[in-house]
Amino acid sequence: MDNCLFCKIVTGQIPCTKVYEDENTLAFRDIDPKAPSHVLVITKEHFGAIHEIPADQGSVIVQLMNAVTEVVKRENLVSEGYRLVINSGENGGQMVPHIHVHVLGGRSLHWPPG
Amino acid sequence: MDNCLFCKIVTGQIPCTKVYEDENTLAFRDIDPKAPSHVLVITKEHFGAIHEIPADQGSVIVQLMNAVTEVVKRENLVSEGYRLVINSGENGGQMVPHIHVHVLGGRSLHWPPG
Repeated sequence: MDNCLFCKIVTGQIPCTKVYEDENTLAFRDIDPKAPSHVLVITKEHFGAIHEIPADQGSVIVQLMNAVTEVVKRENLVSEGYRLVINSGENGGQMVPHIHVHVLGGRSLHWPPG
Repeated sequence: MDNCLFCKIVTGQIPCTKVYEDENTLAFRDIDPKAPSHVLVITKEHFGAIHEIPADQGSVIVQLMNAVTEVVKRENLVSEGYRLVINSGENGGQMVPHIHVHVLGGRSLHWPPG
């Protein structure tokens, strides 16, 4: 997607602070962090939202969530806990229309979640 | 898990307001909703947290997220948007140690997410 911010991060046109990368996914620090640890995990392939991943492409979800688990471990969030947030569309507050999982930790997250 | 609240909902020992059910997953309304649409999607099998699902059991993640997509569609949240939240451990504010995805929609969700 030519005009997608996160696709440009994947190709290196826009820099990021990488936390984890593999063949299918990339994780980098949010530029406006809302917790001591705030990482975005994305698929390298462009999908707009979680409900747009075709049912026969379940491997995309598995790759994404395996990367999330890897980030949770690298950020040492397993024992103290963390929150995962996936926004979709306007009511969700999705700022970039490329699927991404927010991993937040390092402080107590409040309720409700926004 | 004998003393798990959500396992008791799966077996029917504790009632719930079902939104969706299939062989591997169950979705029901949160008893303390934080949005006009607030549904919990769980695996019928007991897992404590997302990072505790073994890497070779990716199908569990796929089943869970397919159920989330089904709930998003049934609740008519696709066009206006929604937020998915997965809490883990104390900092995440996880109240029941059985994996569950909060699906929230029907209003604008704020930022930060708690």
